[in-house]
Amino acid sequence: MSNAPHPGLADYANLRDVELRKSLEAEHGLFIAEGEKVIRRAVAAGYPVRSVLLTRRWVTSLADVLDGLGDRVHVVDDEVMDAVAGFPVHRGALASMERRALPSVTEILRGAGALPEGGEAGGAAPRRVLVLEDLVDHGNVGAIFRCAAALGVEAVILSPRCADPLYRRAVKVSMGAVFAIPYARMTNWYDGLAELRAAGFRTLALTPDQSSVPLDEAVMGERVALLLGSEGDGLSSRWLHEADESVCIPMSPAAMGLGVDSLNVVAAAAIACHGLMRGAKERA
Amino acid sequence: MSNAPHPGLADYANLRDVELRKSLEAEHGLFIAEGEKVIRRAVAAGYPVRSVLLTRRWVTSLADVLDGLGDRVHVVDDEVMDAVAGFPVHRGALASMERRALPSVTEILRGAGALPEGGEAGGAAPRRVLVLEDLVDHGNVGAIFRCAAALGVEAVILSPRCADPLYRRAVKVSMGAVFAIPYARMTNWYDGLAELRAAGFRTLALTPDQSSVPLDEAVMGERVALLLGSEGDGLSSRWLHEADESVCIPMSPAAMGLGVDSLNVVAAAAIACHGLMRGAKERA
Repeated sequence: MSNAPHPGLADYANLRDVELRKSLEAEHGLFIAEGEKVIRRAVAAGYPVRSVLLTRRWVTSLADVLDGLGDRVHVVDDEVMDAVAGFPVHRGALASMERRALPSVTEILRGAGALPEGGEAGGAAPRRVLVLEDLVDHGNVGAIFRCAAALGVEAVILSPRCADPLYRRAVKVSMGAVFAIPYARMTNWYDGLAELRAAGFRTLALTPDQSSVPLDEAVMGERVALLLGSEGDGLSSRWLHEADESVCIPMSPAAMGLGVDSLNVVAAAAIACHGLMRGAKERA
Repeated sequence: MSNAPHPGLADYANLRDVELRKSLEAEHGLFIAEGEKVIRRAVAAGYPVRSVLLTRRWVTSLADVLDGLGDRVHVVDDEVMDAVAGFPVHRGALASMERRALPSVTEILRGAGALPEGGEAGGAAPRRVLVLEDLVDHGNVGAIFRCAAALGVEAVILSPRCADPLYRRAVKVSMGAVFAIPYARMTNWYDGLAELRAAGFRTLALTPDQSSVPLDEAVMGERVALLLGSEGDGLSSRWLHEADESVCIPMSPAAMGLGVDSLNVVAAAAIACHGLMRGAKERA
């Protein structure tokens, strides 16, 4: 490989080539953490380090992470780093981390997906979860995990085809929140909501349809799962039909006249998570 | 220019080179609209078309826009389009549009920034505005305009150094909302809030500081301006000090333990716009 002169650098090749990275990361069971802060969070969450690629000026501040990695630490010039990665790596440090087996949806809904050092969340069954159906944009997935962590969502369930939360851009945009919120991936899309219902979750389908129930007025119950659809088309008709209730975020009456008929999925997720948290507080 | 074989294509050169584009667009007073929907919205908002660069399959659906442009319509192959733009242009149509002089902050606050075809918003003085201080990411600026349009914010004021809402990526992410919401750019950052106060706006500084007043409990008054700070550092201490009140979006008590100490600016803006709209409804 012309731009990965050292075999140990193959994990970092062509970081902007989404298709290549998907197959490479799946094949080797790895993901990439970018920048000191995110690398530290991945390590703290218990992901084993395969190797680190960094420029000289990061060696001291990451010394404790590098300790014991031996020849799996690659110190290079900026030019080499950028050439391997295929773009200017402003954060100066990349780590290749080992993925681990995801918990099942059942395990997550029982609270078994809590992280080793999960602190307060450890072991308790979640009461508020997000369910992401077929989101394609890694940045959106990362941003939604960050919202979830900030606003008291306790777990995330992904549809079988939803974009990978451990893809570099998702990890980066989440600021490491993908390591902090337990998540699982469904194996069956068509009947994916049945398990949530069986576990006592009320499923709310978020839609831009302004004739549905405003989220603030929805009945939430003790356990609530909010369903978010893909960027272009929103939720599938299957899931809209299967959900207990369709809910919306009320928009301004002037919005349609301005040519705006929906919020982007991150904005919608943020408002919805905030609404769930407020709903939980009012019941408490 | 090697990748702009026709002089008429110079407007479209190297669309991913942010620094080049900033100077080129400022020098020629142009901006780029991408894709049929966004081009139509720019035209509907009254921006004159300088030229259009498109692939053959878009000629029919954009026929009315192209009408009368003569040799300022450039029909090219995908390869030529991608070579000129410097990236794969999935939407198949780009238009170079003429900028126009922005209204002043004073004019915007009086409602004079309403668009020619502004409909319901036309001419009425805004009661809810966002003020963006030094945001650097064009995608964030675009996403915030979309939230603003969806959630009843009536105008946006930019600090002198805030990223350009008419930059291609901002336009695209906004889905054209940058054409629909009147906006102005301050000429003076240091005393930028004085004019808002003089116009009767209560200025609320949004901060992640959880000891400030929760937004839902803030006194809003008849006219309210919500201040949003830059991605990295948030609001300047000058503006925090000058604002009437600091407000926050309450986060989950567990968030800090998860390593999440703030929301991203788009998520925060979405929740805040929603809160302003709800506040206005409760007063009505």
